[in-house]
Amino acid sequence: MTIKEQILEMGVNALSASRQLSTLSTEAKNTILLAMADSLESSASEILPANKLDIDAAKANALTTAMVDRLRLDEQRLAAIADGIRQVASLPDPVGEVMSNWQRPNGIDITQLRVPIGVIGIIFESRPNVTSDAAVLCLKAGNATILRGGSEAIHSNRAIAAALQSGGESAGLPANSIQLIPFTDRESVQHLAEMDQYLDLIIPRGGSGLIEKVVSLARMPVIKHYDGICHVFVDRKADIDMATSITVDAKTQKPGVCNALETLVVHKNIAQDFIPLAFAELQKRGVELRCDETALALAGINDLKKAEESDWSTEYLDLILSVKVVDDLGCAIEHINEFGSQHSDCIVTTDQSRADRFLQEIDSATVFWNASTRFSDGEEFGFGAEIGISTDKLHARGPMALRELTSYKYLVRGTGQTKA
Amino acid sequence: MTIKEQILEMGVNALSASRQLSTLSTEAKNTILLAMADSLESSASEILPANKLDIDAAKANALTTAMVDRLRLDEQRLAAIADGIRQVASLPDPVGEVMSNWQRPNGIDITQLRVPIGVIGIIFESRPNVTSDAAVLCLKAGNATILRGGSEAIHSNRAIAAALQSGGESAGLPANSIQLIPFTDRESVQHLAEMDQYLDLIIPRGGSGLIEKVVSLARMPVIKHYDGICHVFVDRKADIDMATSITVDAKTQKPGVCNALETLVVHKNIAQDFIPLAFAELQKRGVELRCDETALALAGINDLKKAEESDWSTEYLDLILSVKVVDDLGCAIEHINEFGSQHSDCIVTTDQSRADRFLQEIDSATVFWNASTRFSDGEEFGFGAEIGISTDKLHARGPMALRELTSYKYLVRGTGQTKA
Repeated sequence: MTIKEQILEMGVNALSASRQLSTLSTEAKNTILLAMADSLESSASEILPANKLDIDAAKANALTTAMVDRLRLDEQRLAAIADGIRQVASLPDPVGEVMSNWQRPNGIDITQLRVPIGVIGIIFESRPNVTSDAAVLCLKAGNATILRGGSEAIHSNRAIAAALQSGGESAGLPANSIQLIPFTDRESVQHLAEMDQYLDLIIPRGGSGLIEKVVSLARMPVIKHYDGICHVFVDRKADIDMATSITVDAKTQKPGVCNALETLVVHKNIAQDFIPLAFAELQKRGVELRCDETALALAGINDLKKAEESDWSTEYLDLILSVKVVDDLGCAIEHINEFGSQHSDCIVTTDQSRADRFLQEIDSATVFWNASTRFSDGEEFGFGAEIGISTDKLHARGPMALRELTSYKYLVRGTGQTKA
Repeated sequence: MTIKEQILEMGVNALSASRQLSTLSTEAKNTILLAMADSLESSASEILPANKLDIDAAKANALTTAMVDRLRLDEQRLAAIADGIRQVASLPDPVGEVMSNWQRPNGIDITQLRVPIGVIGIIFESRPNVTSDAAVLCLKAGNATILRGGSEAIHSNRAIAAALQSGGESAGLPANSIQLIPFTDRESVQHLAEMDQYLDLIIPRGGSGLIEKVVSLARMPVIKHYDGICHVFVDRKADIDMATSITVDAKTQKPGVCNALETLVVHKNIAQDFIPLAFAELQKRGVELRCDETALALAGINDLKKAEESDWSTEYLDLILSVKVVDDLGCAIEHINEFGSQHSDCIVTTDQSRADRFLQEIDSATVFWNASTRFSDGEEFGFGAEIGISTDKLHARGPMALRELTSYKYLVRGTGQTKA
């Protein structure tokens, strides 16, 4: 069989599995998930040696220490992945929810019912835990998955998928509910992305290059988790201590994530008081500041960098912060809508009407008033788990969890109604 | 400017218009819509001569009578389009709806708010009324549109768009809220489909060829309205009169539409009683029957056609019906899920548990129990208007109306919460 034929066969099998999955009860799915978690832990003797092959290859290929660490599994990390599965088992099942129900004058009764999407393709890079995290969330929502991981983690991914499959199938998981593409030829991504007769959705998890590639190839919907160029706007009516603490938190609490702060926007009327204080706190934590001219002048510090035009559209994912002073609220909104990535943006102000304007006019997935952008997260929203933060506007926007892994259908019940 | 540059400029302008549209009140939008309806009627002296140019060209190009008729506008048809706009003005505004609201233990308050999508591209064929229908629905939901019609209707489309723009702008419509690509070069479709920095969604309205082309080019989400290969399954426990009347209605009330019946599936235990009766009624209405062997034998009519394998996956859009006899409910479900287009399918039965199984296991946008598939329609659902029947599972499935032309965002209100 060619690679294309193999991928097509996986598609046929996934569709068949998805039909069976869609009829499983919540209890049946949870039993399967718990068995998968147990299987993952009891398969350490297969998974860890497989992971060692990937680690050795990564070292031989001179991957960075950080990249090698991201690949590495041990008993503790396996236990964390298994606990993640148990957590998903404990979450409410979105499938079967009656989203709405109404009657029409002719007597037909219409129910909008939440159902699984069907078959979801997940294309991801290095971290082997995604194999489990993504498959398990999709499964809880009644979907079959076809997973395509990166070559760096292929041995780990295969071992994890095998453990999930054998554990799940021992508890009633339909065959082919979770399939891993067992090879990493580049063309497999293309075949997957073109297989819209079997795949209802593709979710790429990884850098912009991967997402761009999938977007340009895919014939089915793609949910994208692009960069977060997040802003905090310190309004002239801000509480300066609150503004400082939110700025420091959003920038430094975990700088390498998509909901971390990248650009600080400051109202000119508060800049003189706020900037020296905030900069001192940020510099204490090792943050490099890249400032527009007004901010530079107000800071009164000699060694600050001047921001380049490109800084306003850069996701640093690091202890670097660009800083811009604006004339008014309208300019702040304009800057954020122009240079941001519609991910997560915040206003700090004590003035409700100014906050309301910001909340309405900022066109981002999550807009904050007096809270850190770091709360843009499925866990923090109370969703229990997330598959990512969508930067799309269709179907799923912002933190994306179980509910966003479902579709709906309409059930229409009549008593013989005809249109004529 | 090249065509690409012109399309890009339209994108920039549409984005800017969409930001203004998103802040308009319901009242402001309705005032604009009513002014657009009036303008359309009072612009008959520009629109009808423009339409005559398209009609003359169509005749010169030897288009079929049906195609010429689809293009034709007159005072009455213009009045109908204008009434359609007034109808949309009278519908509830989906924008601003609080979809959900909750508090987290740390005190942050999260609101999921319904907002416009942003900029929507509509690519459509011949019928000039789509220019108005699509733009107006998108506008009511707060979206800017870029419209690209077919060359057959270019003069009519330009005149209609001009009337909508001038009427709307006189009542406060932001400039560039409704833009028509004024030329019909094929490359404009490609530029539009690649412009994902400005366009949030593309909706192709037309035949499969057009949809396929857009799907393969588009970098942004596409909502597809593919064929409807709809089924009625007459269960062994069906009321024969009801089954006959639903079959006749679904097939003959308006055969050229996507929710019309294409394949009749009959349980073997009722086939002997049902088939002769139903066939007589269908033949009385000029329906050509294409039957499997069992149905042929039971019909007792000599001049019936035998169904080919391709009949099971054909959308006739005509007075033709394929007929299949199956052994049991499971076989019916299997046939429909395999050969249908996940659009609209019906079971006729008096047995609730058999109906429930069908409603659950048929993977279609709308599943009917004892009602004609012709009710799969935005108007019949009570949505007031529809932009189409989506055969997608993401974002919008089945009848797609104002609510499906919106997105959402999260507003998070805090009192200084930080994650650290």
